[in-house]
Order: sequence, then C-alpha cells, then structure tokens
Amino acid sequence: MNADKAKVRQVLDGVKASGRNALTAPEGKLVCDAYGIAVPQEGVATGAAEASKLAGTMGFPVVMKVVSPDILHKTEAGGVVVGVNSADEAAAAYHQIVANAKKYDAHASILGVQVQQMLKGGQEVIIGAMTDGSFGKLVAFGMGGVLVEVLKDITFRLAPATREDAASMLDSIQAAEMLKGVRGGKAVNRSALQDLIVRVSQLVSDFPEIAEMDLNPVFASEDGAIAADVRIVVNFEPKAPRYRPDEKDVVTAMNRIMRPKAVAVIGASSEAGKIGNSVMKNLINGGYQGKIYPIHPKDAEILGYKAYKSVKDVPDEIDTAVFAIPGKLVAGALRECGEKKIAGAILIPSGFAETGNMEGQEELQRIGREYNIRLMGPNIYGFYYTPSNLCATFCTAYDYKGSTALSSQSGGIGMAIIGYSRSAKMGVSAIVGLGNKSDIDEDDLLLFFDQDENTKVIAQHCEDLKDGRAFAEVAKRVSKNKPVIMLKAGRTAMGAAAASSHTGALAGNDKIYDDVLRQSGVVRARSLRQLLDFARGVPILPTPKGENVVIITGAGGSGVLLSDACVDNGLKLLKPMPQDLDAAFRKFIPPFGAAGNPVDITGGEPPITYMNTVRLGLEDDRIHALILGYWHTIVTPPMVFARNMVQVVEEMKAKGKVKPVVASLAGDVEVEEAAQYLYEHGIPAYAYSTEIPVEILGAKYQWARAAGLL
Amino acid sequence: MNADKAKVRQVLDGVKASGRNALTAPEGKLVCDAYGIAVPQEGVATGAAEASKLAGTMGFPVVMKVVSPDILHKTEAGGVVVGVNSADEAAAAYHQIVANAKKYDAHASILGVQVQQMLKGGQEVIIGAMTDGSFGKLVAFGMGGVLVEVLKDITFRLAPATREDAASMLDSIQAAEMLKGVRGGKAVNRSALQDLIVRVSQLVSDFPEIAEMDLNPVFASEDGAIAADVRIVVNFEPKAPRYRPDEKDVVTAMNRIMRPKAVAVIGASSEAGKIGNSVMKNLINGGYQGKIYPIHPKDAEILGYKAYKSVKDVPDEIDTAVFAIPGKLVAGALRECGEKKIAGAILIPSGFAETGNMEGQEELQRIGREYNIRLMGPNIYGFYYTPSNLCATFCTAYDYKGSTALSSQSGGIGMAIIGYSRSAKMGVSAIVGLGNKSDIDEDDLLLFFDQDENTKVIAQHCEDLKDGRAFAEVAKRVSKNKPVIMLKAGRTAMGAAAASSHTGALAGNDKIYDDVLRQSGVVRARSLRQLLDFARGVPILPTPKGENVVIITGAGGSGVLLSDACVDNGLKLLKPMPQDLDAAFRKFIPPFGAAGNPVDITGGEPPITYMNTVRLGLEDDRIHALILGYWHTIVTPPMVFARNMVQVVEEMKAKGKVKPVVASLAGDVEVEEAAQYLYEHGIPAYAYSTEIPVEILGAKYQWARAAGLL
Repeated sequence: MNADKAKVRQVLDGVKASGRNALTAPEGKLVCDAYGIAVPQEGVATGAAEASKLAGTMGFPVVMKVVSPDILHKTEAGGVVVGVNSADEAAAAYHQIVANAKKYDAHASILGVQVQQMLKGGQEVIIGAMTDGSFGKLVAFGMGGVLVEVLKDITFRLAPATREDAASMLDSIQAAEMLKGVRGGKAVNRSALQDLIVRVSQLVSDFPEIAEMDLNPVFASEDGAIAADVRIVVNFEPKAPRYRPDEKDVVTAMNRIMRPKAVAVIGASSEAGKIGNSVMKNLINGGYQGKIYPIHPKDAEILGYKAYKSVKDVPDEIDTAVFAIPGKLVAGALRECGEKKIAGAILIPSGFAETGNMEGQEELQRIGREYNIRLMGPNIYGFYYTPSNLCATFCTAYDYKGSTALSSQSGGIGMAIIGYSRSAKMGVSAIVGLGNKSDIDEDDLLLFFDQDENTKVIAQHCEDLKDGRAFAEVAKRVSKNKPVIMLKAGRTAMGAAAASSHTGALAGNDKIYDDVLRQSGVVRARSLRQLLDFARGVPILPTPKGENVVIITGAGGSGVLLSDACVDNGLKLLKPMPQDLDAAFRKFIPPFGAAGNPVDITGGEPPITYMNTVRLGLEDDRIHALILGYWHTIVTPPMVFARNMVQVVEEMKAKGKVKPVVASLAGDVEVEEAAQYLYEHGIPAYAYSTEIPVEILGAKYQWARAAGLL
Repeated sequence: MNADKAKVRQVLDGVKASGRNALTAPEGKLVCDAYGIAVPQEGVATGAAEASKLAGTMGFPVVMKVVSPDILHKTEAGGVVVGVNSADEAAAAYHQIVANAKKYDAHASILGVQVQQMLKGGQEVIIGAMTDGSFGKLVAFGMGGVLVEVLKDITFRLAPATREDAASMLDSIQAAEMLKGVRGGKAVNRSALQDLIVRVSQLVSDFPEIAEMDLNPVFASEDGAIAADVRIVVNFEPKAPRYRPDEKDVVTAMNRIMRPKAVAVIGASSEAGKIGNSVMKNLINGGYQGKIYPIHPKDAEILGYKAYKSVKDVPDEIDTAVFAIPGKLVAGALRECGEKKIAGAILIPSGFAETGNMEGQEELQRIGREYNIRLMGPNIYGFYYTPSNLCATFCTAYDYKGSTALSSQSGGIGMAIIGYSRSAKMGVSAIVGLGNKSDIDEDDLLLFFDQDENTKVIAQHCEDLKDGRAFAEVAKRVSKNKPVIMLKAGRTAMGAAAASSHTGALAGNDKIYDDVLRQSGVVRARSLRQLLDFARGVPILPTPKGENVVIITGAGGSGVLLSDACVDNGLKLLKPMPQDLDAAFRKFIPPFGAAGNPVDITGGEPPITYMNTVRLGLEDDRIHALILGYWHTIVTPPMVFARNMVQVVEEMKAKGKVKPVVASLAGDVEVEEAAQYLYEHGIPAYAYSTEIPVEILGAKYQWARAAGLL
C-alpha cells in the first residue's frame, strides 16, 4: 500500500505542537490524501478562469462556496452554487458569488471561492476506527443514517484489516443486501469500499496516536467510494502496552506447570476439611506420579510425605507450587518460590483484586515478573491436567479423561464444568481456573493446549479479556489447528454491569467481542449448557469435507424440527437431492416416505431401513454430514438402533468413509442409555432434543469454515 | 368507526361487474374515503378561480397537473407545477399550465387541471392487509423503503385490529425508534397511524372480497398520516370457511372423550405385540375405573373382558372408541360408532393423508360430521388423561400426574414428551396425539383444558394450524386464564419445506405465526427442550405481582450469566437497588460481596447467608421474583442449600409472601439431586445451566404480561 507516512507524521506533529486533540478539516484531508483515502477534491480560486480550470481538473459537477472570514451564513449571502456543470458555468458562478457576497456585506474580506467536487448520491455508509481498551485498534463499517443510528447495524474488525476481513465486513451487516443494489439501484463498488477499510485500518495501526477516526458519510456508488466528511481525534498519551512474555517462554513454563516432575503444596495440611489437605489428597488419589512436597511451618510429615518448612529447603527442583495459605502470607511464600526457580504458582487463596485489594495483587505481579514465575489466579480452585493425572485443586477428582481442555474465569462456573463433565461422561484433558488472571490468562492456555497432543478442543469461559488483542492474535493461529470455543459472559449490558462489579473488569462492547472472536476463528457458545455441549461433542466429531448435510429420520416431526435447527445453526441441507441419490434412498423406504431432504423413512421401520439409508448417506461422496432422527418403536428399540448405527459408522470408517454424524432421539427413557452409547462411540446424540445435536454439528462446521478447511 | 359501507359495496360491485380483480386509483380513493382512510385530497378545476378555491379547501402547498387524454408526458409538456403555495399562485399556475399545454400540442383536448394536496415528507411507512390461508385477514405495518425490502421489518396482526393492537404494531418493528424521531426529527403522530391501521383492518374484515390492500408509502408526520398510493386487489370467490362446531358442543364431546364412563377398543387383541393388545393392557394397567369393551370379530373374551363383534352389540353407552384396526377397516367401524352415538373416535391407524390417501381421510371426516362423532387423528399414538387414569394409547403408561396438558402433531415428538416427562418427573394431566388433525385440533384441546380443573398449563407442538384464526380466537381467551405454550415447527423456510412434505400442510410464513401467537397471548417455545422445560416449570411457578427481579448468587460468575439470561428473556432486574434494601442485603454478606443486583453473597458462605438474603428477597414487597445462583461448597452442600431454600420459601408462603423463585446450580453431580428436590418443592432448578431457569421465569412473565396480570 502506498502511504506517505512522513506527511502524516508532519500533520500530527503540528497538531501535537498546537496542543489540540482533533484535526481540522484541511489536516484531515492531508492525512487522507497521504493514505490514498478518497475525499472530495477541492481548491480555492481567486479568479473566474482559475475556478473553471480547477473545476475541470476535478470533474463536473462541482459545488462553489465563497471563502470569507466575515460571512458566516454563506447560503443566506448567496455565496453557494451547487451543481455547476461546465467550465463556463464555473466562471459565471464565480462572478455571481463574488457579486452576491459584496452586495451582502460590502466590507467583507473575500479570499476567493472554494471549488469542491460534488458527490453523486450512491449509498451512504460509515467507515471508522477506534481504540478499544482490550482489543486496541479496531476498524468499523456500517450503513449510514438511521441504519447505524437506530438499528446499530455496524461491524468491527481488528486493525489492520486485510482485504478479506474488509470483504467479510461488507457481508456482515444486516443490510448487506443494500450494497448489492436494491429497488433497481446498482451495486456499489465493493473493491473501493474494501480498499477504504484497509487504508483506514492501516493508518490507525501505523499511527497509534490516532484514537478515533470517522468517515461519515462515505458515498459508495458503482464507480467508487468517497468520504464526504472526515473526523480524526488524537491522543498523544496512549496507555502502555500490557506485558507479554515471549511465546516460547510461555510454552516452556506452561509445560513445566502442567506436566511437573515435582509439585509443592504450600500450606499442606493433615487436617481434613482444610484446603491444603484436600489438595494433598487430590494429588495423591488422583494418581500423580511425580514427587509431592508438602510445605508446612511445623509438621515433619503430612499424609505420609516428608514436609519442609520452605520450598527452599527441598533438595530437588520443583516445577509447580500450589498455594493453600491465607492471602496475606502469599507474597512471602511466592518470593521463596521465585528464588527456588519454580515455574508456576497456583494461587488458590482469595483476598486480592476481587475484594478490592488491588495493591496486594499488584505486589504478586511484581514478584512474579521479578523472578520469572508464572501465576495462575489468585482466587481460583486450581487446575486438573489429566494426562499427568494431576489434580492440583481442592475440588474432587475428575472421572473421565479425554481431549477437551476447559477453563473458567469464575470458580462457580468451574464447579459446573466439573459436575457436568462427570455427569455427562465428558472426557477432559484439563480444567483450569483462571480467577483474577493476575498473570496466566486465556491466551497462555491457548499456546499450551495448541502444542498439547492430548487436547483436541479448547473451551473457555471468560468475563473479560485483559488483553483482547493478544488473545485474538493467538486464537487466530491456534483455531486453525484446533477448535477454540468461548462462552463470553457479560454479553448483554445488564450482564456486563454484573461482570464489572464482580471482577472489577470493564466488560467490552459485546458486538466487538462477537466480531473479533469470529475474525479470530473462535466459536462462540451462547449459554453455559452450550459451552458444555460443544466441549463434549465437538472433539469426537470428524471434520466434514463439505457443506452438504442430509437428515435421515424415522420421525417426520423430528425432521421438521431438525431442519429448523439446521437453518438456525448455519447448516446447508443438500437440496435439491440429486435424482439418482433420491432414487437410491427411495429404494429403502416405504412408498409414502417423504422424498428429498429430510429423508423420512417413516415411523414403523425395522433397523435395516435405518442401516441401509445411513450406509448410503455415509457412502455417497456428495453427502458430507448426517443428522439422524430416531423414533422409539417396538420394531426398532433404542439400543438396537444405537448399536446398529455404530456398526454402520464403523463399517464405513473401515472403508475410509469418515463423516460427522449426530443424532436426536425421540422416545421413552431408554433413549437416554442409547444416547450415551452413541456418544461413547463417536456420535453426539441427545434424548428429547432436536436442537442440541444440530448445534454441535453447527459448531464443528463454523470452526472448519473459519479454519479454511471447507 | 364511521364507515360508508354502501359506497364500498357500490365500488366493489362495479369492479365485479367489469370482471376485474383490482381497483383503479379513483376507485381506491373512493373506498379509502368511505372508511376515513386519509389519502391526498384532489379535484379537477376547469378555471383559475376554481383552482384557487379547490387548493384553498385542501390547504397549501398543492401540486397541479394538466388533465388531458392527449398528453402522456405531462412534465415535458410543462403541465405540472409543484409547490403551489397560495390562491394567487394557484390561479397563475392554472393559466400557465393551460398555456404550456396548448403550446405543446395545439390539438390536445384539455379537460382541466388536477389540484392535489402535496404531501410533506415525514416518515415513509407501509400499511397493508392480506388474506392468509390459515389466519384469514391480516393487517401489516412496516417501515417503508429499504427497511421493509431489505430487512423485512414488518409486523402482522389479525384483522380487525384494535387500537391497542395497532399501538403494539408500532412498537414491534425493529426500527420502532424511528417513529419517535431521530436525527432531530419530530415524532410521528402515533394516533393517526393507529387509526389508519384500525380502519384498513376493519375494511378488509367487512369486505372479505378485498384480498389484498397496500398503502405504500404512507407519509407519517407529526401532523398525521396520509397514504400516497393505494392498491386494492379483490377476489370474489373466497374459500369456504372451515367447519367449526359450536364451542359448547366441543366441550361436551371432549369431556365425554377425556373422562369416559366406558371405552371400546376396536381391534382389541389377546396377542402380545399387537397394538390392540397394548391399548387393552394400558387401559387396564393404567388404572382406568370405567368400563372396557373389547371389540373383536371372533373372540368372546380378551384379557378377561367380555368381547363384542361390534360396538352396536354393547348393551351400555360408550363414550370413547379407540381404533386399533387396519386403515381400510376404519370407515366401516366408524359408521357403527356413529350409530352407537359414541362421542369420540381415537384413530390410531395410519394410511390416510400422511400417505397421500386424502379420499380415505375425507371419507372419515364425512362420517364424523354425519354422526356428530369427533375424530382424534388418524395416524396417532392415542392419548393420556391422567385424572381419569386413562391411557388410551399403545405407548407405555405415564408415571407422573400433574397439571400440564401436552399435545403433539407428530408421533415422534409425542414419544419425546412421554420420555422426558418420565425422566424429568414432569407432572402431566394429559398427553394427546393429534396426527393428521382430520377433526380435533389444537383449539378443541384449548377449549377442553381451559375448563379442566386438573390442568394449569397447556403446551402444544404443532407443524401447522389448519384454522389459525379459530386457534387464535380461542387462545386469546384461554391464555387469559392459563399459560398456553407452543412449539411451532417449520419455523424456518427449510423447516417449513420439510413440514410440507411431511403432513401435506402448507406451512405459513413464520413471521405471521410469531406475531399472531403473541397477539393471542401464546408463549412460543423456540426448541423441543424449551417446550418441555416450560411445560415442566411454568405450572409450578406462582404468578409474579410485578416486574422487579433480583438475582441472589453465591457464584459471581453465575450472576453475570444470569444477568445475560435476564436480558435475553425480557426480564427486568430491579436497578438501581433502593438504598435501604441494598443496605439490608449488605448486612448479611461479607464486605467484599458485590452491591446492587445481582446480590453477590460470595462463594464461601454458610447456609444462613443464603437463607437470610433469600428471606429478605421474599419479604420485601418491592421485589417480585428471585433467581438463585448456587455454588457448591463444603460449607453449604447441595442438599443443605435445597432444603434450606424450600424451608424459607414455605416459611414466607405461610406469611402470604408468594413469589416465583428459580435456581441455577453450579457444582458437582450432587447438584442434580438438589435440583430435582427443589423442582418437586415448587422451585424450577437446573444443574450446570444459568439460562434454562431464567427462560422458564421469562416464559411465566411473558404469559402474565399478555394475560394483563402485570
């Protein structure tokens, strides 16, 4: 991109020198010109011939306005002529304006006549940029006028934005259709709009002191896009960037923390009911195979393990220290951990930022930075990492190993994760409490789980992102490899207010989170249950190879609801069904079974009908994913259906036909056992729900599309 | 409302006589004038003085146009003058137009000059009316231009609409804010718009032959609302109205069917596995106390009951006949039931409309009508009515009696209802299969359950409403007494296509269903699980007395998600919390607990903190509903929390303080038992979900508002 950075620097220096925080219109034009941002051409003529010439170079029509410090109401003074269409008209207009102005005020100082390119309608849009506390520079695009004001029809991306980002912005607004031409209007020049978005986003990225920028309105037409008005606000005292350790160091430290050779428990206790006792028991009973060092001021032995007065007294290296002591003792013990070169401190104790004790938390951060020790928490339940059989927490031990890594900002949500995981037999690789996030946060976890061969899906609950930009940058890379799912709480204004009183964090504008998370390839869960259902189902589904989804159902009624759910979740039903495929399905189903998609095999069919149709669905390469609707009958009982489906899926897998399959089971309580059996054999299945299995398939698709796999 | 019906009749007769299906512009104006629908005033002047006078009566400015059959391009001929502002200008314009026209074409026949009221901008809106296959006459309102074209920002109501309906339409569109004035504009005259909507809706109701009507655009301003263009399409062959029995007869027949003194099983069988055997067993084992008459061509006794060859051979009166015979035998047996004066035939057999056999189904309808016997089905699983201990179905018997009456159009969904009901211990009064709905449909059930003292909530699944208008009219009355909840499948275009191939029903435009169901006070469930959760939770919640909701939570993280859910479900958190109330809550919670709403009691608190805060929430009359967020800890285990909450709620109930309370439980698997205990004691509670309990409370509120109880 051609950009005259020196020119912009010069303008900004001038603004800074004059102590202003906003640019004048001419300064704004200079900046736009330097970055190739189209604004109306303009100039001042001091004679009729010059006016004609100026107008000729910028192209007709033009608008002409008197330039006089003494005339405030130009129109009233007869000092404005619009729609000047030729060189002759320009000359005539010059004379007329000067004459009118003199007549209006004989003593007025007339400096000349401004000639400005006249914008020809088109579609009014808005392009802007802003600085977000968490995400930094953002570029915005929306429709002008009431659509942005009343309907808040606007979309955001991290700046700088690529042309692809810009294209996605044009498609993301509600009124996207308008850019394609409505009521016989012509489509706008998309390329010109993309260009403008990219340039604005580059400008604010190159010059962080540009805090806000508004091109409003931009007139977009089939010919191009021109900003009719430019507003630039600057801030020469931008906040210091947040400290970010080197990514390699993050991974090294996280590996030591999550797969430690030795763990110290600071505040270990022999007394049942104490947190330091629960942590010791969980480490031992969880099956952790490394060394365990209880730390206690007096006791010589705790639960059969030799205890030490300080980590510094332990003869071996220690990787992870779990803190189970009162908050006021943490800083001292943390310093000792630093001196001992421990990689990570798991700070269970509370009494820091969440109670208003900011100083206490900042002290811990300073010590952590000084000794290069990473801090998890404070104010957390600890963490589980199942491949190490590590339960570094006071909560009860996990039951099901698996491939989903979960984390939560809130302890309560963490407990819900643990309970659901056990109840729904969701296999987890890790559950991590982040609490006050004084140091380790979501992007540190992403970096670790990205390279963790035991983790296939990363699912996170958060209330705020302390450094949204760092998260987005890491998530964009990681989500190319593994699905990243997020439940962002404080979605609504009301929720955000609660978040703010809970963690002291300023919850961001949810629309920004929504757009940036999507830009980063993150799948957003809309509710706690959805986070949990996604975390459970997405990792066991194979990645689809295409968009064609087919519903095969024994219950016509489920077929309708499953179709609804497909639309709700952005899935595309293969429609119309190719004739030969339709005919092939028809061979297996009764003559009154419904054609097309859903394939309605009808209610009273034996297991073989389900098997034949599902086998065909898996075999034919034009079909990329299956949604099954089961109806409980005496002819095909739930467990018979479940076993048969698993058999067909495995039979086809052996032939290299691997596709995502989800199932909705309608029937009496026996369908619950069948749903669990299907899940345990790679088919996310739910009883009494047509929507949840489709939501899970939708999440897998959303991820695969964002990762460029479709 | 003043309306000149005779005038409209005269115009429509003229249109009919001339064999047209649309009205001309002057005809449209006559119709509008007859119903007081404001259109621009206009008249033709044949002299300058007359032009001045005409213009004066309609008010300035006016537009003047030449009237000549010979001049097609009026503007080109200089035959149009806009913005005529005074009587003098009108006279001058008259002369000028005539002169220009003569100059343009000396031979043109000039009939005069049309003087038309000139509309002064304002907001462009659309008001229309249409005829829907299921709902009949509907009135529509939307914003004009791109908002309706691109964003489909339009809303519908049944016609005729009341002024209150019309007011709700103005508030229902996405861009409602625009009517209140944006960008410094003035608010439109709401009363004038309401008036226009009411008049249009009355017109199409009075004259069913008006199939469509469009006022587009209507210019709405602070002064009033005038339709700039009117289009009326007529259809003189409207379809015959659907047969509707008298409501008293419906209730009488339904009472005989649901609470029969005697039931016949046509096709009863001793052979296990046969439908006629399952039905007999379910009647017997379900505990039905009336008489059971098996009907069988040969057997003398079935399962210990004397069998008859025909219902006509049974000596006593029979109320309900359950059919378990092949489809082709149904018509003959139904005729015998008719002769026996049986009230209702439960038509389990399939092979009718759902397989394309329309004639077969129509034959049953004819017989039903002839003998005044009501038909349930065909193609159904039958029904349960628990107060009669009646399982007139081949499905397994129910487990939990209660106060929710459910129905489903689809058999598969019916099975899901039965399974969920058993699994979640949802108490039901009835589960009814409606299948092909050849006769008995949703509004028949509403009429019965409305007067059924055993039913508190009615929850229905449907794919189409055969007679949406009848349903809406009944639902509007019934929903004033009892919540009516509906899962309308085929919501989306894709789902609707599936519905159509499934039942042969033309699924309506979902937006119409959405608006009309709301207008009728029906709460719409968005998914199968939501239908089931609402059916389970809504009946046990007391009706709130006001809008002020308070969240009391032990988990701050749950508080944020619960707040999000409140916004999503239209609940209003009491904010700001009155100072004295805030202070009163603070007395019970640690100093770092969060102020306001949510009341964050913090995580480590003992049971007494939950009890004190919840007691206060129930006691204070400024609070109308409570949402509890529980966090599983050792200090307050799940069942301790559950028992304590029930104790406080019952203690306060004894003092007359009855409020809806729902709970979200975050914790390990023990919270599931606690959730069930809470539900069984009147508190809908869910483990691992912050959204479901709030959705249930939201449904109760939505109903209470629509029923005028808030």
